[in-house]
Amino acid sequence: MNVRDFQRKVESIYFARDSARGWAGTFAWFAEEVGELARARRKGTREDLEAEFADCLAWLSTLASLEGVDLEAAALGKYGKGCPRCGRTPCGCGT
Amino acid sequence: MNVRDFQRKVESIYFARDSARGWAGTFAWFAEEVGELARARRKGTREDLEAEFADCLAWLSTLASLEGVDLEAAALGKYGKGCPRCGRTPCGCGT
Repeated sequence: MNVRDFQRKVESIYFARDSARGWAGTFAWFAEEVGELARARRKGTREDLEAEFADCLAWLSTLASLEGVDLEAAALGKYGKGCPRCGRTPCGCGT
Repeated sequence: MNVRDFQRKVESIYFARDSARGWAGTFAWFAEEVGELARARRKGTREDLEAEFADCLAWLSTLASLEGVDLEAAALGKYGKGCPRCGRTPCGCGT
């Protein structure tokens, strides 16, 4: 699935509620999920870890939607041609 | 671009270095980018904000790669059929 289509999917499930909550509260949820990812890596099951990766991506997507940012366009704009600093694939910065 | 293909792209640019650094150091970088996203929203330009969304997605992708997690499969496994708690689109939890 395209990054853009996943962002649209998350919007279709959660945008009304996330939009009503606003940036600050939604960012707090995202930060909580980031913490849960760290915990799942330390002491969770494989399924826990996969679920937390999914949650982090979903909350990052919804934050982008709140700001009207197309996550796919942003990601390809920065990384589509290799490392944004050195322009190489693999990155040659510092080597 | 598919979530999977973006994850592969980030691997092709950074996996060797990120793998050598390991989970803890790479998670610290990811957390730093999460902070930069908050700062860009508060006082950055539109371009700054888009770049920080791109960075958060790239670092989340590389963390998934370090753990052998397919970010797209994880995301669709959890959110592909609507809200994972109520099964509805839009989510009906708490309504």
